[in-house]
Amino acid sequence: MSGRSTFADIVQTLFERRGSKGSVLQSRSIEEMCHALLDVEGEVSGIALAEAVLDRYAGMDPDEKLRFFQFLNTDLEIDPAALRAAVSGFQNGQSIEDYRRIGRLAEPRRQELLRRLNQPTGATQALVNMRADLIRAKARDTDLARTEQDFQHLLRSWFNRGFLVLRQINWDTPASILEKIVAYEAVHAIQDWDDLRRRLYPQDRRCFAFFHPSMPDEPLIFVEVALTLGVPDSIQHVLSEHRDQREAEETKVAVFYSISNCQEGLAGVSFGSMLIKQVVAELSRELPQLETFVTLSPIPRLAEWTRSVNGEDPSDDRSVREAASDYLLTAKDAKGRPFDPVARFHLGNGAQVYAVHAEADLSENGVSQSFGAMVNYQYDLSKIEQNHERFVQDQEVSLAPQFKNSQGMATNRKRILA
Amino acid sequence: MSGRSTFADIVQTLFERRGSKGSVLQSRSIEEMCHALLDVEGEVSGIALAEAVLDRYAGMDPDEKLRFFQFLNTDLEIDPAALRAAVSGFQNGQSIEDYRRIGRLAEPRRQELLRRLNQPTGATQALVNMRADLIRAKARDTDLARTEQDFQHLLRSWFNRGFLVLRQINWDTPASILEKIVAYEAVHAIQDWDDLRRRLYPQDRRCFAFFHPSMPDEPLIFVEVALTLGVPDSIQHVLSEHRDQREAEETKVAVFYSISNCQEGLAGVSFGSMLIKQVVAELSRELPQLETFVTLSPIPRLAEWTRSVNGEDPSDDRSVREAASDYLLTAKDAKGRPFDPVARFHLGNGAQVYAVHAEADLSENGVSQSFGAMVNYQYDLSKIEQNHERFVQDQEVSLAPQFKNSQGMATNRKRILA
Amino acid sequence: MSGRSTFADIVQTLFERRGSKGSVLQSRSIEEMCHALLDVEGEVSGIALAEAVLDRYAGMDPDEKLRFFQFLNTDLEIDPAALRAAVSGFQNGQSIEDYRRIGRLAEPRRQELLRRLNQPTGATQALVNMRADLIRAKARDTDLARTEQDFQHLLRSWFNRGFLVLRQINWDTPASILEKIVAYEAVHAIQDWDDLRRRLYPQDRRCFAFFHPSMPDEPLIFVEVALTLGVPDSIQHVLSEHRDQREAEETKVAVFYSISNCQEGLAGVSFGSMLIKQVVAELSRELPQLETFVTLSPIPRLAEWTRSVNGEDPSDDRSVREAASDYLLTAKDAKGRPFDPVARFHLGNGAQVYAVHAEADLSENGVSQSFGAMVNYQYDLSKIEQNHERFVQDQEVSLAPQFKNSQGMATNRKRILA
Amino acid sequence: MSGRSTFADIVQTLFERRGSKGSVLQSRSIEEMCHALLDVEGEVSGIALAEAVLDRYAGMDPDEKLRFFQFLNTDLEIDPAALRAAVSGFQNGQSIEDYRRIGRLAEPRRQELLRRLNQPTGATQALVNMRADLIRAKARDTDLARTEQDFQHLLRSWFNRGFLVLRQINWDTPASILEKIVAYEAVHAIQDWDDLRRRLYPQDRRCFAFFHPSMPDEPLIFVEVALTLGVPDSIQHVLSEHRDQREAEETKVAVFYSISNCQEGLAGVSFGSMLIKQVVAELSRELPQLETFVTLSPIPRLAEWTRSVNGEDPSDDRSVREAASDYLLTAKDAKGRPFDPVARFHLGNGAQVYAVHAEADLSENGVSQSFGAMVNYQYDLSKIEQNHERFVQDQEVSLAPQFKNSQGMATNRKRILA
Repeated sequence: MSGRSTFADIVQTLFERRGSKGSVLQSRSIEEMCHALLDVEGEVSGIALAEAVLDRYAGMDPDEKLRFFQFLNTDLEIDPAALRAAVSGFQNGQSIEDYRRIGRLAEPRRQELLRRLNQPTGATQALVNMRADLIRAKARDTDLARTEQDFQHLLRSWFNRGFLVLRQINWDTPASILEKIVAYEAVHAIQDWDDLRRRLYPQDRRCFAFFHPSMPDEPLIFVEVALTLGVPDSIQHVLSEHRDQREAEETKVAVFYSISNCQEGLAGVSFGSMLIKQVVAELSRELPQLETFVTLSPIPRLAEWTRSVNGEDPSDDRSVREAASDYLLTAKDAKGRPFDPVARFHLGNGAQVYAVHAEADLSENGVSQSFGAMVNYQYDLSKIEQNHERFVQDQEVSLAPQFKNSQGMATNRKRILA
Repeated sequence: MSGRSTFADIVQTLFERRGSKGSVLQSRSIEEMCHALLDVEGEVSGIALAEAVLDRYAGMDPDEKLRFFQFLNTDLEIDPAALRAAVSGFQNGQSIEDYRRIGRLAEPRRQELLRRLNQPTGATQALVNMRADLIRAKARDTDLARTEQDFQHLLRSWFNRGFLVLRQINWDTPASILEKIVAYEAVHAIQDWDDLRRRLYPQDRRCFAFFHPSMPDEPLIFVEVALTLGVPDSIQHVLSEHRDQREAEETKVAVFYSISNCQEGLAGVSFGSMLIKQVVAELSRELPQLETFVTLSPIPRLAEWTRSVNGEDPSDDRSVREAASDYLLTAKDAKGRPFDPVARFHLGNGAQVYAVHAEADLSENGVSQSFGAMVNYQYDLSKIEQNHERFVQDQEVSLAPQFKNSQGMATNRKRILA
Repeated sequence: MSGRSTFADIVQTLFERRGSKGSVLQSRSIEEMCHALLDVEGEVSGIALAEAVLDRYAGMDPDEKLRFFQFLNTDLEIDPAALRAAVSGFQNGQSIEDYRRIGRLAEPRRQELLRRLNQPTGATQALVNMRADLIRAKARDTDLARTEQDFQHLLRSWFNRGFLVLRQINWDTPASILEKIVAYEAVHAIQDWDDLRRRLYPQDRRCFAFFHPSMPDEPLIFVEVALTLGVPDSIQHVLSEHRDQREAEETKVAVFYSISNCQEGLAGVSFGSMLIKQVVAELSRELPQLETFVTLSPIPRLAEWTRSVNGEDPSDDRSVREAASDYLLTAKDAKGRPFDPVARFHLGNGAQVYAVHAEADLSENGVSQSFGAMVNYQYDLSKIEQNHERFVQDQEVSLAPQFKNSQGMATNRKRILA
Repeated sequence: MSGRSTFADIVQTLFERRGSKGSVLQSRSIEEMCHALLDVEGEVSGIALAEAVLDRYAGMDPDEKLRFFQFLNTDLEIDPAALRAAVSGFQNGQSIEDYRRIGRLAEPRRQELLRRLNQPTGATQALVNMRADLIRAKARDTDLARTEQDFQHLLRSWFNRGFLVLRQINWDTPASILEKIVAYEAVHAIQDWDDLRRRLYPQDRRCFAFFHPSMPDEPLIFVEVALTLGVPDSIQHVLSEHRDQREAEETKVAVFYSISNCQEGLAGVSFGSMLIKQVVAELSRELPQLETFVTLSPIPRLAEWTRSVNGEDPSDDRSVREAASDYLLTAKDAKGRPFDPVARFHLGNGAQVYAVHAEADLSENGVSQSFGAMVNYQYDLSKIEQNHERFVQDQEVSLAPQFKNSQGMATNRKRILA
């Protein structure tokens, strides 16, 4: 009744018991075990070896981990001379042997090592966590960027969209997963289980997450959704204990009010755009009366930018809204992209600016980072591709018609400023 | 109650309905769609595009498929000049930019295309099937070996051991999967459902298969196991309708009497060794009284070899056994490996020759390929690694002690012949 | 991975091992064990005792079972004198004690015994099978009708509609359940697994069954459904290997062409009416375009009745149809109900006669029992209750409008005959 | 992805939509609908009618419910005169007709009504809740004891051991069930989710509950277990935040420190004894090294009894222990059973007194009801039956050998007192 049968454990136990493998493993360095895993030995006792490496790693302190990453970075590096020779060979003859040689030589052996480490139960999670360590270690030794690049390449392939599973998170979800939702919520902190229940239990609240089959208990990313009658202009109102609940069937708007990545080690393996689009699809199917899909998003760097440009804070709600509109439409980074990271994400996904609101997030953080302003980005499936293309090619910020109408003044002002 | 919600379908439908995507897609060539998927467009409407490409492909005839593969092979090839430049750059400065450039340039764009195709539900299976087509197409255009190599590289990464799931196949398994077991059995054909029931239902029969989470209804490889009192010397006896059944708890020997790969498109992505080892571990856990794990294996090229060496067939059981022993111990291919492919597989896994039997497979096929002889290979976990190493390094065929004792004569004879 | 943990087994094992219960049980008669189960002992070691009784029973031959039933019938009978006293007491004082006494005394102790036997895993199935034995034994000793009545009473309560689970049977159903469908099909025998696949796999074929949570692997009753464009007039056509398949979404008619009870021991605990109505509801929900729900039913006693009435067989299709119409509308049993058992079932459920067909079942059985005629009964939810009421109160056979129109002559003729 | 298909709802909807049943139902009294359900109408539209009755009931206030119960109690009562006639008939002829008549007449029609109400999804829970209302109503009208008796009789049959399912409750259990555990814990209140986590998550803590298949989200009864090295003498220690956790495999004692019934409406349908025995069996199987199974139980009426007997409170730990021993061994109710209800439960199950402890429950409640004393009852499977029999037949309180040794003085004192 209790546990799962973990074959990896069994195999290892058997090897250790029958073959006295364990004690031998104890006496070898992690580097030796990695080499063994890449050599002949790895083909037979791969799982036991991989588990031994991962166990050894798990017990290391940050300095030891740094050295281990340096070993990966240096000892298991590509051989550029050999690679160049193979490329030259291929240029001459286009032979399949040379082609294979390029493939083999252009990929450092640490990539094959990672694939062989990914055998025991739980290894995928362990490697994701290892990358989180590596990102930290890279701050101490920027050379590790190469190894970090290899991790990212492999994880992108393993966490390919076709392997992800969308699951609804609700009040029937195991507590062991729910406590991770509490821990990972990065936008509007969940105070306690009562707060969590308010976000999951009511008929007009939803939550969806992506999972990977090899990490069934670990959400990768999740989004919280409020189903409402109108487009909301305040996060406190959305999260309020005292709000009126609605029947899901009578709501008109789906509001994505919080989206959080869960795995530091999957930084750069982006799921957010795909998650939002699938949730739009799923909700459209279940509740065909829904008309509008918007976010209620923070504007994290509004105050910073406004002060640097204007030298002073806006004085009333109207000027807060104007400041926010200006910022979203005109503030750019060095590459010409929106200065605001959240805007970059949603506009890059093909969303369009729908409305800005003052007094929308009166939390300490909300007031300090954006004078309390928030913004709705709209996901209009009929325009999403065209918005995306304009954004990528012309760096143009798309606006919903509603926003254009309501912002006559702000838009004029933008022209003058520009 | 009925079906699964396939988000991919929904997303596509939505895109098509709302964005009139579908009709536009119809008018474009598969090559154009592939380029779109690799470009900006793929980032937004990736699933719909990927599905359109896979649908288009599914409707092609072999000639069209050949041309599609040639497009992948040529248009999405690496650029060796650019790659060589990047390697030179890296040799000079070891910069991370050059390193990334190598990674990007050494990998042909068709690999990224395959990753992006792998988004809709069912895409993984479609790509596995595409590789099966490609293997056939390669016979017509050997140049396609490069593209074929890329498929194999990617599938090896996706079908990494850590992502496979071991499931027992028994009489409670859905009929839709069982009919695939019937279809895929490649060693001893399953006659009908009664025959299948005899192999799955009795307490002293087992079957295990590997599955991949993205292809939950498709076995990748499976092994059939008989639990017996002694090591069997005849496959007809193992499969007999009239044999006595045993309580699983009283058996002493687990016999792997048939192992079949199911997916042509996964050729070269080897699961067999791992499957056998996990099944040994699983059975050891469930039935700790089991003492011996052996195969009952065909000797497919015995007759061919014997005739070429001796010029005549062995005349009695004893000479059949001697011929089989000689063949297994001495017949080698050009690379010095065992001439027999089944021997190569099991000995390469670290198994050892346990016994040879005459009159062991009296089917037409058994008699014609091996004079009716079969062989038991033993998986002794305490020796498996050492066997494997000797095999790989010294091309030595390991023998179980039982075999050594019983084969005094044959072994002497081998010395004389050698 | 392997089996279910059966607590009953464990508890018994523990009792036996620790308390040496087992050996003691061996030496007692089944009657002694039954008395013990009803007494003090049953409160503590109920499961072990119940299992011992059921095991002992399972090993009995028919004569021993007969004696066991006679023991239940005689030794565990009600005490009418005591019951009459309790009833008199209650008539005087209406006291709760007398009321409880009535409840206790009016119920023979064998009912409590059955409830206590129903503790170990698998006991419910064992008791259902016991009733099947009892029905047979009753033919040898009609006195057993009393005990049989008690079984039926209890099983009706346990197999109450609220406890049944409707499950779709399809090609993803475990083979262990499918082979029971093959075995239990009582109307149109399933030839082999290919025939079964033709009935379950195509999109225009469905099968539904009721299950009880305590017998999860045993269907109680199942119905096979064909989705068609028009109302079918031939069972051979419905079952044909060579018929054209339809998309479920384009069909207009759901045809219940076979309904089979699976458990002899649940005779008289009727599920059929409820199953048909739930399947109508389920199909209406999934395929809202369906317009008509009909059966394609045998007319089992048509030939028998026609010969007894007319003295000769009908000579052509038209006279077969007339004979069938006459039979369905006018042939009654002694209680005034339809003479035909299938008609009794469907008309009693509120269905109405829709059409009769000659040359509809050309199997040997079909020709011999009904000259090859079959009938469609229609389940029209808007009329079902009113049909049922007329049938129960006025013994009136309801006719669909289509039938009335098509049968002008036959109906006239009925008036003359009546 | 979202909900369950509730056939009951569908059927009703269909009936209402197609047959305009709904509006008709609205206009009838609950009594009329009950009669209809018992009559002809119930056979066809049973689910819709049953659902209408349960819906109507759910909307009633306590006075209306009282009147509804009085209707059940009076209008659907047995007819004693008719029953007496049937009994007399049976006494004369033993005919099966008379026997059936007795069965029918001795059972009031409200029992059949309850069976027919139990058809829609959720009905079983609704009827359990109805009985909880009825128990309250009985306090206002003691005559309702008859109807209450019928509910209990039926629920005992439906919640028969063979239909219950044991499930482990742990940190992977859905939050919707866990919040019920928090709500239903009746012995040592669960403060919050952190407290709950401390009771469920650690490897040396377990929780098991019985469920019924028709109420899959509602625990019926649950027991919390601590796995420890020694027999604990303090509940605060067991529940402490700061205790040391153990590996389950190294523990020796399983402590049942809290057992709570969850359903008021199932009062008198006892599951406790069976739950404890199954959990003993389950834990023995999983952790064969466990040697001792004890409770850590409150002594709820110790203070009350001691004060009435001694007139004063015990002054030190030793006298508290003596008082507790005396109380457990000698305090009896009017029927000669232990005065203490918890003692009655465990001793009645065949447990034996193992040890008493002072300063074992220092909560306000613990101190006020029992001077802080608690008791361990031991479940020794080898003695459980014999203990039970002595308890039932001779009202003898069984003592574990440990207790006898440690309590020399107390036991002597008992002899003197007796």
